[in-house]
Amino acid sequence: MASPSPDLMSTIVSLCKRRGFIFQSSEIYGGLNSCWDYGPLGVELKRNVKEAWWRSMVTRRRNIVGIDASILMHPKVWEASGHLSGFTDPLVDCKVCKERFRADHLESLEKCPKCGGQLTEVRKFNLMFKTFMGPIEDQSATVFMRPETAQGIFVNFLNVQTASRLKPPFGIAQIGKSFRNEITPGNFTYRTREFEQMEMEFFVPPSEDEKWYQYWKDARFQWYKDYGIKTENLRMREHEKDELAHYAKACADVEYKFPFGWSELEGIANRTDFDLKRHSEFSGKSLAYFDEESKQHYFPYVIEPAAGADRATLAFLIDSYSVEGEGKDARTVLHLHPSLAPIKVAVLPLVKRDGMPEKSEKIYNDLLDNSIKSFYDHNSAIGRRYARQDEAGTPFCVTVDSQSMQDDTVTIRERDTRAQYRVAASSVVEVINQKIKEAQK
Amino acid sequence: MASPSPDLMSTIVSLCKRRGFIFQSSEIYGGLNSCWDYGPLGVELKRNVKEAWWRSMVTRRRNIVGIDASILMHPKVWEASGHLSGFTDPLVDCKVCKERFRADHLESLEKCPKCGGQLTEVRKFNLMFKTFMGPIEDQSATVFMRPETAQGIFVNFLNVQTASRLKPPFGIAQIGKSFRNEITPGNFTYRTREFEQMEMEFFVPPSEDEKWYQYWKDARFQWYKDYGIKTENLRMREHEKDELAHYAKACADVEYKFPFGWSELEGIANRTDFDLKRHSEFSGKSLAYFDEESKQHYFPYVIEPAAGADRATLAFLIDSYSVEGEGKDARTVLHLHPSLAPIKVAVLPLVKRDGMPEKSEKIYNDLLDNSIKSFYDHNSAIGRRYARQDEAGTPFCVTVDSQSMQDDTVTIRERDTRAQYRVAASSVVEVINQKIKEAQK
Repeated sequence: MASPSPDLMSTIVSLCKRRGFIFQSSEIYGGLNSCWDYGPLGVELKRNVKEAWWRSMVTRRRNIVGIDASILMHPKVWEASGHLSGFTDPLVDCKVCKERFRADHLESLEKCPKCGGQLTEVRKFNLMFKTFMGPIEDQSATVFMRPETAQGIFVNFLNVQTASRLKPPFGIAQIGKSFRNEITPGNFTYRTREFEQMEMEFFVPPSEDEKWYQYWKDARFQWYKDYGIKTENLRMREHEKDELAHYAKACADVEYKFPFGWSELEGIANRTDFDLKRHSEFSGKSLAYFDEESKQHYFPYVIEPAAGADRATLAFLIDSYSVEGEGKDARTVLHLHPSLAPIKVAVLPLVKRDGMPEKSEKIYNDLLDNSIKSFYDHNSAIGRRYARQDEAGTPFCVTVDSQSMQDDTVTIRERDTRAQYRVAASSVVEVINQKIKEAQK
Repeated sequence: MASPSPDLMSTIVSLCKRRGFIFQSSEIYGGLNSCWDYGPLGVELKRNVKEAWWRSMVTRRRNIVGIDASILMHPKVWEASGHLSGFTDPLVDCKVCKERFRADHLESLEKCPKCGGQLTEVRKFNLMFKTFMGPIEDQSATVFMRPETAQGIFVNFLNVQTASRLKPPFGIAQIGKSFRNEITPGNFTYRTREFEQMEMEFFVPPSEDEKWYQYWKDARFQWYKDYGIKTENLRMREHEKDELAHYAKACADVEYKFPFGWSELEGIANRTDFDLKRHSEFSGKSLAYFDEESKQHYFPYVIEPAAGADRATLAFLIDSYSVEGEGKDARTVLHLHPSLAPIKVAVLPLVKRDGMPEKSEKIYNDLLDNSIKSFYDHNSAIGRRYARQDEAGTPFCVTVDSQSMQDDTVTIRERDTRAQYRVAASSVVEVINQKIKEAQK
């Protein structure tokens, strides 16, 4: 296996555009800085990543439920959470050339690094996007696009707990868009102003916080491995005390070795009872949990695994990418986990005659009717068609050849090993379903 | 079956809160007007609605692919689409009491309907939410939150067509949030400022537009019926010529008989080649399709079925709601389609002893391991537990009783018919999977 080249990132960006994983947003208008659109293969990959998370965090869990809160929330939420006052970057302007800089990225605040001009005082710049609700554009109508999904969970804590009759330890999970007006977005879909989060807030008795913190660090690290990220490209980094957010008692990042360096995929934080207490204080409605057994109210502690859906998708893409073989045998492969692969099966008639297209169509329809995402391709040589599917990450190809016309069997060709074997045409749906299910365990 | 009471809407709103389908957004802060949060049951229902749409529109289709474009797009997009100049409501203010009104909702523009004061001139109010990207809040930094997902599809037309090697007729589908600064939102989740759309743009040779318009009207009407909406509560309403948007040659609405009257669930429009031509003009990049066979470029016509995920979810909730029986036998049921039901199975030990909880736990774990959304309940009398599941729309209950301890069978109780029958405990997963699959056909 060839090792990743130093320009792996640009190779990935170009593959993403060519094959329809990710396009620049509004590309025909020159693009919108740091916004990206998922194309036909990308949307399926990202959907599968989110589905794998939801399955692992909600569907298969007895003590975790989901919610879907709105992006626009009451402005008081951000006062209570601390985002209105504290979610800022320090900025300076050059008085001469008018360029703007993040103060904490400059070596000196003496003079402009571009023109040498004098710099303004450092000002705090809030990272929340603001807009106006209703017809009047003034402060009373100002609302913010949420910078994190977590607060939608905290403000709904009692409603959810009561409706679902849950007792700590229990969790509330959410997938949704968040927005941060980053001054320096970059690295493709890694740091963007619009992004999708997969967050879960796990409410525990305060005495159990350290146990659950460890539990979720282990579980979340394992999740990335389960879906195929190579162990050597993953690490857990515990935050230093001086790195911790004001609400956190402890925090650790699951980091991935991106081509641009080790970077955060997901943070697991012990947020203590900070958020529930603050919202109780600011709203005047106590969010304390009433424990039936001890007949006491208490504020649960919160362990939060907060992942980025776009970052996870990017990591799965990069980690699965490989260029293999030499010369004529060379191929580009995305070794995506079968659960994550955008297309599960490609159906390929060996040639466009002798009844092979008709038999292939029948199998293709059968797969579609069973909601197995499939692709039909009868153009160009079979080797080239396999190569196209390898590059799209399709784990299985079903080929209909002349033997198929005689004994009603087809060839299944596996992406990773290139192994080929024959199965009855009528059993294709069952075989594929079984293979995908096995990979999920 | 009792007929819906006139206050059906308030009954639904109250059920939604009590059982955790839908909560008011930021409720502890007094709520945010017209924004709503989906609770544990609601998020699963809405996820299932979206999944049913995607399955029917993308996964099972050979000529439709998906995309997921960003909410923030280049401002030029909205110039080209006509939203910047034309997407407005007419407003007037009272010069005395400062109240604001939609001019087209007033009987007279002579005087304020509230205080009798003089009104201002009518002004156009744009319905797009605006925000500022980057640190400077001025016009050059102004971007808009998309008021429809459709434009994300049009600007990506050529990228998608090229990467996917598609030929008209083919479609591009998308599910995502849109935002409109409505002056008069209302009717629970029916008209909200933040909402989720399920849109598909189907690109066809211009000569085939009428055929495909009819095809999609039929297909989309059928979809609501397939998932259980009663025929008598659905109708198709063709727009009058003077109702048509400037870009449309024809449009029809799938309407549902909501408690507040017949209202649009989904619009099917013939958008002609308006959008592709406008974006070609404004971007300077031709979005014409090159037809290999005729060796000609042409702009495809677009047939657009545009549905609201929140409206569909609300219609499924309301339509499935029923109060049945009398006195002690009375029950509230959500007859949700098994594919849409938030919880598929409730596992209920008849009593909390004699090994029944342990056997129930085993079945429950088995269901969870197979990603079948399930619920375990051992509290209160069995009749009451059935009633709770009926009200949540759970199609199947599995009860473990004393016979189960002897012959390893369990009772399956069906929600709609209350029919009960015994199956082997070991076959529960298979039986339930089969039942859900059958309902999907």
